[in-house]
Amino acid sequence: MTTLSVRPTPLDPAAIRTTVEQLLHGFLDEQERATPDLPELKLFTGQLRDMIAAGGKRIRPVLCVTGWHTITDQDPPPAVWRVAASLELFHAFALIHDDIMDNSDTRRGRPTAHRALATHHTGRPDADRLGVNAAILLGDLALGWSYELLHTPDITPRQLALVWPLLNALRTETLAGQYLDLTATGHLTADPDTPWRVIRYKTTKYTIERPLHLGATLAGASAGQLDALTAYALPLGEAFQLRDDLLGVWGDPAQTGKSALDDLREGKHTVLAATALARATVVEQCTLRRLYGHPQLAAADAEQVRTVLTGTGARAATEQMITDKRDQALGAVDTTHLLPAGLALLRHFARAATTRTT
Amino acid sequence: MTTLSVRPTPLDPAAIRTTVEQLLHGFLDEQERATPDLPELKLFTGQLRDMIAAGGKRIRPVLCVTGWHTITDQDPPPAVWRVAASLELFHAFALIHDDIMDNSDTRRGRPTAHRALATHHTGRPDADRLGVNAAILLGDLALGWSYELLHTPDITPRQLALVWPLLNALRTETLAGQYLDLTATGHLTADPDTPWRVIRYKTTKYTIERPLHLGATLAGASAGQLDALTAYALPLGEAFQLRDDLLGVWGDPAQTGKSALDDLREGKHTVLAATALARATVVEQCTLRRLYGHPQLAAADAEQVRTVLTGTGARAATEQMITDKRDQALGAVDTTHLLPAGLALLRHFARAATTRTT
Repeated sequence: MTTLSVRPTPLDPAAIRTTVEQLLHGFLDEQERATPDLPELKLFTGQLRDMIAAGGKRIRPVLCVTGWHTITDQDPPPAVWRVAASLELFHAFALIHDDIMDNSDTRRGRPTAHRALATHHTGRPDADRLGVNAAILLGDLALGWSYELLHTPDITPRQLALVWPLLNALRTETLAGQYLDLTATGHLTADPDTPWRVIRYKTTKYTIERPLHLGATLAGASAGQLDALTAYALPLGEAFQLRDDLLGVWGDPAQTGKSALDDLREGKHTVLAATALARATVVEQCTLRRLYGHPQLAAADAEQVRTVLTGTGARAATEQMITDKRDQALGAVDTTHLLPAGLALLRHFARAATTRTT
Repeated sequence: MTTLSVRPTPLDPAAIRTTVEQLLHGFLDEQERATPDLPELKLFTGQLRDMIAAGGKRIRPVLCVTGWHTITDQDPPPAVWRVAASLELFHAFALIHDDIMDNSDTRRGRPTAHRALATHHTGRPDADRLGVNAAILLGDLALGWSYELLHTPDITPRQLALVWPLLNALRTETLAGQYLDLTATGHLTADPDTPWRVIRYKTTKYTIERPLHLGATLAGASAGQLDALTAYALPLGEAFQLRDDLLGVWGDPAQTGKSALDDLREGKHTVLAATALARATVVEQCTLRRLYGHPQLAAADAEQVRTVLTGTGARAATEQMITDKRDQALGAVDTTHLLPAGLALLRHFARAATTRTT
């Protein structure tokens, strides 16, 4: 089992990220040491190391530790760090399988796992298929390891009994949210209900609410305190995803690490797109229906779609919703229920998450 | 949590299967009840119910309970049943993802999960891709649920501490074995080392050794007793897989539930095929290299391949290895280390597993 040698300043997100990354690297080291007769596994641990090294905001680990700090002034115990690292490894799993489903080529500015694993098998006639299949296995390994990380004497049975129900719900919600997203994609309608439901399960609960609750629950949060965190998480998760949708269309690929064409080519059923369709003139509707979700969408066509999304006012309306929801999240947290140190982190995160460019 | 209302006669494999199936159905019921706001999940629980209803030998649950009975005369406690059911749900996960990787259309005489899920979306232009993507998610859910099944007061923390290391090793070995299999497939050589390694990780440890060890460990097995079970498991696992390879080529699809062309079209790198290649004349080698692994292999071509596999003596040699290895397994277990009731089950299983037609 990895020993935690580093004690970060608890309230510094950068230090939280470093601690979680060290814990993950230590865990991958252990996996390699435990399987000397399976050298092939190093291809998979290596891929996960590359994903970690390529960056990522570590939002879920940071919010898990933040959740702890909203409830107590004590230093987080090893259980909190383990759960934080587990959330990041689960996220690696989710990204690997999502990128297969979305047929994405780049992530965090690098080839996605299935592309990198296809390159590893360059020269074989079935390299592309082998890349996808190996990435399915890599995701499976990451999912399993995200739970194996918690099988440690560092976490007491009582702590595990608090943590498992939340992690189990998080997994089911996230996978169901991904399914909703898959079935909605390519079926553009002006109806905003579906995109809001996708956001609820795939982003709000997965990225914000459950991580906060995990840290807070380990700190002994009351029902009232958990409710206060939910009141922050729900609008903020929505604002976070709306920003993501805008970045998917207008983001700078050099900063986001993703192509600015992927969401448009997929026909992602976003609140932005539904809003545009609801406000569009007949001509604009034709443009959206013809081009939004076109798998070979060219750069010039993408620019036409962007013009409609802006011209209908959908972009400005989405920006306004982001501001409103962020303010709603900020207004929901107060010192009645939560400690000042944790609150400061929540406020900082709300601003960063809604104004980000990556 | 599901209460175990049925106490089977402990030494009856059919009763073991029934108890495990009831436990799994009860667990899926709970999952549906817990997520009333996610009715979409019923598509997934329904798929798993269909897979369970379609049959399957429940080898791993039966061997887990058998492992218990080799060590103690007491009735298996709920922890043993839970672990047995967990193994079956893990197996459902493995089959779902394997069938995607192998592009198989049928399993247990029914459409594979990705085919059934594609049919569910008939009429959409992206139905096939949606079927595969939904099946990736279904496998992910089954993997997660196979562990969630163990988060229950029915299993003590001490029992869990015994069980997790074995389940974690089983998962890593199985996924690594699947990767070895993927990379070996389509690369036919006369070298038998690779197929034997695939068998070790993907079959012997996964299907026989680990399930036996899980039940035995929960019963308090000594190191000597675990070694005795390993001495049985290793040759028997090999014999089991060799029989599987023969059934893949000469099995009756009506009995196996699988196409008799899948293994040949895939070019599965089996001990059978490696043996044939090592013994083949130049003309026979040409036939194998031209046809074995041909993705559109016709029935007449398949017959040519079968003629070579038989003509080289590879089929008979494989039959002989099955007999030898089964006898080796039967000779390895004795009443010095293991209880008679469990031993009887081990002997029965060794015969059934090596002479089966399904």
